[in-house]
Amino acid sequence: MASATPSDRGDIAPRSFNRLDPRKLDQADLAEAYDRVRRSTEALIESLGPEDQNLQSMPDASPVKWHRAHTSWFFETFILKPHLPAYRPLDPGYEYLFNSYYNGVGRQYPRPRRGLISRPDQAAVTDYRRHVDGAIQQLLIQLDPPTLRQLAPLILLGLNHEQQHQELIVTDLKHAFSFNPAHPPCFGTRHEPSGQNAAFDWLGFEGGLFEFGHEGPAFAFDNEMPRHRAFLAPFELGSQPVSCAAYLAFMDDGGYERPELWLSDGWSWRQVEGIDAPLYWWREDGDWWHYSCTGARPVDPDSPICHLSFYEAWAFAEWSGARLPSELEWEHAVRALPIEGHFADRRRFHPEASAATGLTQAYGSVWEWTSSAYAAYPGFRPGKGAVGEYNGKFMANQMVLRGGSCATAAGHLRASYRNFFHPHQRWQFSGLRLARSAS
Amino acid sequence: MASATPSDRGDIAPRSFNRLDPRKLDQADLAEAYDRVRRSTEALIESLGPEDQNLQSMPDASPVKWHRAHTSWFFETFILKPHLPAYRPLDPGYEYLFNSYYNGVGRQYPRPRRGLISRPDQAAVTDYRRHVDGAIQQLLIQLDPPTLRQLAPLILLGLNHEQQHQELIVTDLKHAFSFNPAHPPCFGTRHEPSGQNAAFDWLGFEGGLFEFGHEGPAFAFDNEMPRHRAFLAPFELGSQPVSCAAYLAFMDDGGYERPELWLSDGWSWRQVEGIDAPLYWWREDGDWWHYSCTGARPVDPDSPICHLSFYEAWAFAEWSGARLPSELEWEHAVRALPIEGHFADRRRFHPEASAATGLTQAYGSVWEWTSSAYAAYPGFRPGKGAVGEYNGKFMANQMVLRGGSCATAAGHLRASYRNFFHPHQRWQFSGLRLARSAS
Amino acid sequence: MASATPSDRGDIAPRSFNRLDPRKLDQADLAEAYDRVRRSTEALIESLGPEDQNLQSMPDASPVKWHRAHTSWFFETFILKPHLPAYRPLDPGYEYLFNSYYNGVGRQYPRPRRGLISRPDQAAVTDYRRHVDGAIQQLLIQLDPPTLRQLAPLILLGLNHEQQHQELIVTDLKHAFSFNPAHPPCFGTRHEPSGQNAAFDWLGFEGGLFEFGHEGPAFAFDNEMPRHRAFLAPFELGSQPVSCAAYLAFMDDGGYERPELWLSDGWSWRQVEGIDAPLYWWREDGDWWHYSCTGARPVDPDSPICHLSFYEAWAFAEWSGARLPSELEWEHAVRALPIEGHFADRRRFHPEASAATGLTQAYGSVWEWTSSAYAAYPGFRPGKGAVGEYNGKFMANQMVLRGGSCATAAGHLRASYRNFFHPHQRWQFSGLRLARSAS
Amino acid sequence: MASATPSDRGDIAPRSFNRLDPRKLDQADLAEAYDRVRRSTEALIESLGPEDQNLQSMPDASPVKWHRAHTSWFFETFILKPHLPAYRPLDPGYEYLFNSYYNGVGRQYPRPRRGLISRPDQAAVTDYRRHVDGAIQQLLIQLDPPTLRQLAPLILLGLNHEQQHQELIVTDLKHAFSFNPAHPPCFGTRHEPSGQNAAFDWLGFEGGLFEFGHEGPAFAFDNEMPRHRAFLAPFELGSQPVSCAAYLAFMDDGGYERPELWLSDGWSWRQVEGIDAPLYWWREDGDWWHYSCTGARPVDPDSPICHLSFYEAWAFAEWSGARLPSELEWEHAVRALPIEGHFADRRRFHPEASAATGLTQAYGSVWEWTSSAYAAYPGFRPGKGAVGEYNGKFMANQMVLRGGSCATAAGHLRASYRNFFHPHQRWQFSGLRLARSAS
Repeated sequence: MASATPSDRGDIAPRSFNRLDPRKLDQADLAEAYDRVRRSTEALIESLGPEDQNLQSMPDASPVKWHRAHTSWFFETFILKPHLPAYRPLDPGYEYLFNSYYNGVGRQYPRPRRGLISRPDQAAVTDYRRHVDGAIQQLLIQLDPPTLRQLAPLILLGLNHEQQHQELIVTDLKHAFSFNPAHPPCFGTRHEPSGQNAAFDWLGFEGGLFEFGHEGPAFAFDNEMPRHRAFLAPFELGSQPVSCAAYLAFMDDGGYERPELWLSDGWSWRQVEGIDAPLYWWREDGDWWHYSCTGARPVDPDSPICHLSFYEAWAFAEWSGARLPSELEWEHAVRALPIEGHFADRRRFHPEASAATGLTQAYGSVWEWTSSAYAAYPGFRPGKGAVGEYNGKFMANQMVLRGGSCATAAGHLRASYRNFFHPHQRWQFSGLRLARSAS
Repeated sequence: MASATPSDRGDIAPRSFNRLDPRKLDQADLAEAYDRVRRSTEALIESLGPEDQNLQSMPDASPVKWHRAHTSWFFETFILKPHLPAYRPLDPGYEYLFNSYYNGVGRQYPRPRRGLISRPDQAAVTDYRRHVDGAIQQLLIQLDPPTLRQLAPLILLGLNHEQQHQELIVTDLKHAFSFNPAHPPCFGTRHEPSGQNAAFDWLGFEGGLFEFGHEGPAFAFDNEMPRHRAFLAPFELGSQPVSCAAYLAFMDDGGYERPELWLSDGWSWRQVEGIDAPLYWWREDGDWWHYSCTGARPVDPDSPICHLSFYEAWAFAEWSGARLPSELEWEHAVRALPIEGHFADRRRFHPEASAATGLTQAYGSVWEWTSSAYAAYPGFRPGKGAVGEYNGKFMANQMVLRGGSCATAAGHLRASYRNFFHPHQRWQFSGLRLARSAS
Repeated sequence: MASATPSDRGDIAPRSFNRLDPRKLDQADLAEAYDRVRRSTEALIESLGPEDQNLQSMPDASPVKWHRAHTSWFFETFILKPHLPAYRPLDPGYEYLFNSYYNGVGRQYPRPRRGLISRPDQAAVTDYRRHVDGAIQQLLIQLDPPTLRQLAPLILLGLNHEQQHQELIVTDLKHAFSFNPAHPPCFGTRHEPSGQNAAFDWLGFEGGLFEFGHEGPAFAFDNEMPRHRAFLAPFELGSQPVSCAAYLAFMDDGGYERPELWLSDGWSWRQVEGIDAPLYWWREDGDWWHYSCTGARPVDPDSPICHLSFYEAWAFAEWSGARLPSELEWEHAVRALPIEGHFADRRRFHPEASAATGLTQAYGSVWEWTSSAYAAYPGFRPGKGAVGEYNGKFMANQMVLRGGSCATAAGHLRASYRNFFHPHQRWQFSGLRLARSAS
Repeated sequence: MASATPSDRGDIAPRSFNRLDPRKLDQADLAEAYDRVRRSTEALIESLGPEDQNLQSMPDASPVKWHRAHTSWFFETFILKPHLPAYRPLDPGYEYLFNSYYNGVGRQYPRPRRGLISRPDQAAVTDYRRHVDGAIQQLLIQLDPPTLRQLAPLILLGLNHEQQHQELIVTDLKHAFSFNPAHPPCFGTRHEPSGQNAAFDWLGFEGGLFEFGHEGPAFAFDNEMPRHRAFLAPFELGSQPVSCAAYLAFMDDGGYERPELWLSDGWSWRQVEGIDAPLYWWREDGDWWHYSCTGARPVDPDSPICHLSFYEAWAFAEWSGARLPSELEWEHAVRALPIEGHFADRRRFHPEASAATGLTQAYGSVWEWTSSAYAAYPGFRPGKGAVGEYNGKFMANQMVLRGGSCATAAGHLRASYRNFFHPHQRWQFSGLRLARSAS
């Protein structure tokens, strides 16, 4: 992006508008938040060429260019068209082309073919982003404060939506680049492994009837609500995410060849797909290497393991004589912790060792698979209108992950945040933390 | 089966050995229970020819002959081989051929090819059953009472296992026969529809912290344990399973064409598979017909709807402005009811209307899809050894169904019983009951 | 078949009605030919149980029971319905169920599901055969001689059609039985390998403008006509089919690992399907075994190699520095030979060594892949009506094989006979003979 | 391409170096031919953006960028590396990345993933082309005349290879752009339909023993040789390619719904793929439209029909009461005609009407499907070394097309030229001309 300067780049994490009551954000707050989030998307992709931005390596992933356009479409569709009467779309064909899955808005261009759309090209998408940005800033100026207060939650939804797509830009392009035999770097700056982990420890938690889910005026997705009670038996959590060293021990112990460690569907998946290592790993002269966002690297034993499917995480836990935590155990355990960690603002885009003690790296580093199927909380009601398709219709066949990763925007996470993927998917920075029931 | 007489057939539901403490069953009790369950399998299939028994219409289903052999293999593998030193297998090749999925026992013949095994033929499988039956009866006579008490739970597991396969014999062969354009009857006796349903009602339940799962000495599967506490918010349940009349109203209202009613995965399934009606339904001159175990029949509006996938059940509930119950809501609601209903002993093999009021047809008639993903209860431990593969390794991607069906053996069910299938599967007698959160 | 006696079995090859002008066959000739062909089908399957007869192991193959019914359907559809006014079908549903691919007759039950039809069972199919047999014999008696002369070619088509299905009964059931880990025998009598081959030789043929295709009044399929001229350059043919010993040398020399020996489509097929040996072969303790119609046997080096795809035959020829013959070269070379060889009447159902010299085993033993794509001869016209679908519509993507095999009915072959299969198919007794252009 | 000027563009068809004896071309001739062919590739793609050049819409097609690189790789691999000792590859990774299918050179990057290679980007590929171009020109200067005479055939092979890829650039990108709902133009200049066809006529040809294939010193591919004799019966050819008007009559007469018109494999293909019109056609308000290289257009009745599969061409011929010509009939009929027609130098990239009489549009306009399977001519020997993989290994499952198309480079064709595709493929400009046997 032409207007990005080096100093911008150090600053892509916007301040935490997500921690405040949206209705108390004024026009300047919203304008600044909007500007920072949108600029951070452009800063993220500034070293990518037009060909890079158009790649789609599987139906689950989308081209970078599509992400840049779709996030603009989101603001156009849910904010500009209904609330800015003078708004004129840049191109009427974009409504169809950049709708992801909102049936309430209309038909969608088939997802597996997004990579076949060379036109609009990346320059036209940049124009589209500017067009939408100009209109949003105009809208923020024009609206009277009461209307703005009403719209603020939707604007924050759009910003959080864009942050989610920032993470997908990283994971989707990493997946596409992994097919390039030259292992080109795609994101971030290269660092040496950051040292050694603290010793592993088990941390205990009392059982009881607790409250879960989001509460309060600050932004949250509909799937984090309503706040509700649930009962937990006493449990223990591992002090840190599982490391590559631990995972290598599982592999050396025949972890990928022993059906008794695997769920039945997981074992079938492993056999059909020929899986015998985490995604992006390969063996070279007896050593394990992996493709990272900064290129090919030897596996660092102290880094948290990532790019695991739920099936692999489950098998590892079984091998360890432990289990995965439920999403409610996880939420209960981290509730009191500050929301700090290794997020995308570090620009490493790979998890690293941590010498900290206590319950460490709960936020950032790697998404942690839980044992919980993604489902509605008791009393769940999706948002009104097409925005109600955001989360609710995916509540089948997926498992919850918690905590965010090294590719998640700083300021985006909270204790009640629920991510979800199908159990075989592993192109996210997905790892695990062990749990066990207190004896 | 040569020794079955008409009077036997009216009597295929064995008395409720499942309600007693297995360790209090003596040799005569066990011998009688064993004999009755095993004979009821043979009575079920007595009108089937050799070609019928060998059909396999999809990888999910198995040939009748295979079920008859596999249930014998179960007794041979887990009881005779370890506990009857003099036991000699009839054919050493059966260990591989009739192992379903127990990796702890050894490799298995590929499931999708079971229908390619013409030899051993059905007569040889009858011999195999007699061989195992003779050895089990011999074992029961030989064992001293303390050893018998130890073995009794495993024998009851074998009998419950066989009852489950009796139900699969019905559903699997019905599926295979559905491909025959002549719609031949396969099981049961033909009856006229049995009348009208009582009026639909909502029944309310208080919230609170309750206990769930199986408790006590009587038989239960490992997945129903341990007994544990969970919190329920107040809720309401429909008084009866959803009827065909209600489902037809959903269809008439465009239920299969409106993506907003469907889960995302469900909508994809519907589109890819071209689904626009329940399994086994077709339209003829403006009327809906279906293939039942007794042949082609017009759809009876008052019968509970069945052969739905979870996706269809979910869409119907959404269209109704309601939802599916969780498995714990279901269990809590039925706990006090007597375990009575329309089971396989009625030999109808299709659900029927009920004029009863209150919470009706919870047991029997149709399996009821719940909103709960099949998962381990807190503190779950699978059984020791290969038997531990019975339930635990399927705890991913499947949804819980409750209550049994018109094809379930009488005496087999209880309040804590958990059945589970993948959300797209619908060749079981699967329907639903509506729920809603109390306002 | 109840009426078959051991002496019948030695006699299943009917005398050569195929060598005569059909219009000169009288009622008694036709009745005898019909009776012998039909009885030989039943004699072939007399040791098969009902389950065996219902197996279908791939869409390319059909159940034995289906072959028995379809050949009866052929007489019913093309002879009885149009020519015997009093004829009543045994079951009106059979018209749909047992139509193979004649769109001119009506819709067909889907081929891949033929194995799902358990009813009519094999006993009902036996009744169907008797019903048709009785009606045909009645028709032969009733018709006046001129009408009979007109119908005779169609009756002979029906008999040759049935002979083709006799061969398919053998190859299709062999394929199905190959999935049974017990390797049960299915057809024929077990013999020791029959000795050593004569030495291999190259036999030369002059070039020139020659005539090809069938001529004369005797029966032939439409695809063997019209008689036409084509030019051949001088060529040489191998004196015998390629032996297992020669093929093992190809395998030992890395034949399955060297892409330069393969056609591009063949190499892809080999990789996708994981092919590294002929069909039905496996290695045990360093030796090659194969599943034959009489059970598991060690590979006999002197037997002609069989169960090869066109791709494998082509790669072997390439490795040999030779090529496959064209179908016209083959026809030209064998024209003068007597039509004798190892056919199904030997009841071995596997090719064997031959000590004969000269151009040997051209007829019988193994079908020989040629380099010729199956196509219409110049001026080809298919038969009138639905019978015209017999051959012509398959003239794409298939390669011609010549000469018949050990599973072909004796009396069925001639020099101009053209068989055809897709290049990847290998469940027929398909081998090859080498050719090369004369220098 | 920066150095291309408008005058260049009118001139992209190089003079006919293909008509001369390569050994008589001197250094200047070869340098000019090389320069013109290579520049015409760059002129062809000058309006394409980087995203356009990276698209791959199916495994059969390749990105434009890949074509530009692979044609350079061809010169590098077969000419520069063996014959210019000082040559240094620009990037050693390109040998693997841009090898199409030459196993003799080494392994290849998987064809279906060519569109996932964003780096090298199109600018780097332009550098690669310049690097190779510089080295070739240097080689041409350095080599002494006798060596040059030896190399000339290989250089001409490289140039003809590049011309073939020029055609694929057009057809592959047209296919990719067809998925863009905006129907953007990709190649050529838009013209109004060019008028009316002359009346259709049948033209007769005598039979006899004729010679076929290439002869003489000028360039030809190995598959056009050796010159050989074959016998033709008398036949007739349609005077012009089949027009859209004729094809629309076939469609209106139920051509896509009548199985009796189709080959069996063709009918299956039609059903499985849901084919009911030529590729790129759709219906809008009762009119047929199609996507052309210059964007969406109404179907012009007088244009030759194109983008047909062999199956569709065959069904049309059957419906017409005619047949496809054999490739030898075609070659015999056109031998005396001048090699003129509607080639790529017209920059229309779509066939057009012709008012000419006699045997018209045999060259250019549309490739004409023949009834001939692609196979070796008698005595065929592929070229030595890896270049021998160019044509020979594709001689299975493909049908021959003759005559070139509106996307073929002018000067590239001749009477003996054989193109070949699988019968279901239709993204080339493939149509047909009718034939019939003389009565």
